[in-house]
Amino acid sequence: MPLNIVLVEPEIPQNTGNIVRTCAATGSNLHLVRPLGFSVEDKYLKRSGLDYWNLVNIQYYDSFEQVKEKNKNALFYYATTKANKTHSDVEYDENTFIVFGKETKGLPEELLNANKNHCIRIPMVDIKEARSLNLANSVAIVVYEALRQLKYPNMR
Amino acid sequence: MPLNIVLVEPEIPQNTGNIVRTCAATGSNLHLVRPLGFSVEDKYLKRSGLDYWNLVNIQYYDSFEQVKEKNKNALFYYATTKANKTHSDVEYDENTFIVFGKETKGLPEELLNANKNHCIRIPMVDIKEARSLNLANSVAIVVYEALRQLKYPNMR
Repeated sequence: MPLNIVLVEPEIPQNTGNIVRTCAATGSNLHLVRPLGFSVEDKYLKRSGLDYWNLVNIQYYDSFEQVKEKNKNALFYYATTKANKTHSDVEYDENTFIVFGKETKGLPEELLNANKNHCIRIPMVDIKEARSLNLANSVAIVVYEALRQLKYPNMR
Repeated sequence: MPLNIVLVEPEIPQNTGNIVRTCAATGSNLHLVRPLGFSVEDKYLKRSGLDYWNLVNIQYYDSFEQVKEKNKNALFYYATTKANKTHSDVEYDENTFIVFGKETKGLPEELLNANKNHCIRIPMVDIKEARSLNLANSVAIVVYEALRQLKYPNMR
């Protein structure tokens, strides 16, 4: 079973393009929750991810609830700067869904509050101005920690 | 002592911009080996990294040899798809230098051959077309594995 990356309402096409590329390189599935901040025909999206687009299992949804409904028994983690646990504190299985919010605002507070024990953050330096990672980089960091724990299945 | 990221002749300004941002978020130093494929005034570079530029200790060099000469006793690792060891097989200390090559070609073969035991690769799926990660994502993945091993020093 591959890992699953969920992007809730991503805004910047280059980020989603780079995340498609990370999914291709790792055999992960990508789940995109609309509205997207770009057309899937966007030239920046294509430039950053087009070569990899057809290698990835991409599914589209109209709400995050649809993702949950279709994957009732899966383990979900929610990436947010506000979590108590870090992304390397938790354990992943091969059917984990890792959920990321939009670039400007992250995931809705309601969703985070309802899932506090499954929220994870990436550690950063303790300087407010410096505390921000690009979305595609954040996805890559968490995916590779999960894959490290799983001993890089079907990879070399 | 912070980690050190070395980019040898990076070509794409958005990547270096994103790597500046990762350095800011992690307190890592950035070492740039010329020629760069862009001006440091580039608008794409600024858009992706400008808010973080002044938070990072950035040093410039005219050759990779200069980096080695100035840091004779440091531990160096070289990121390449051709390595035998993975990035999570090796041990990092707090003064490690992690070296990345240009986007299109990677590091010079001569340099890799001369440092075989210090070459590291990021595992990927075993499908040729899918085996490629964006440079900024590769940097983020290796830096966060090093920081995980070091228990996220001065981070929270």
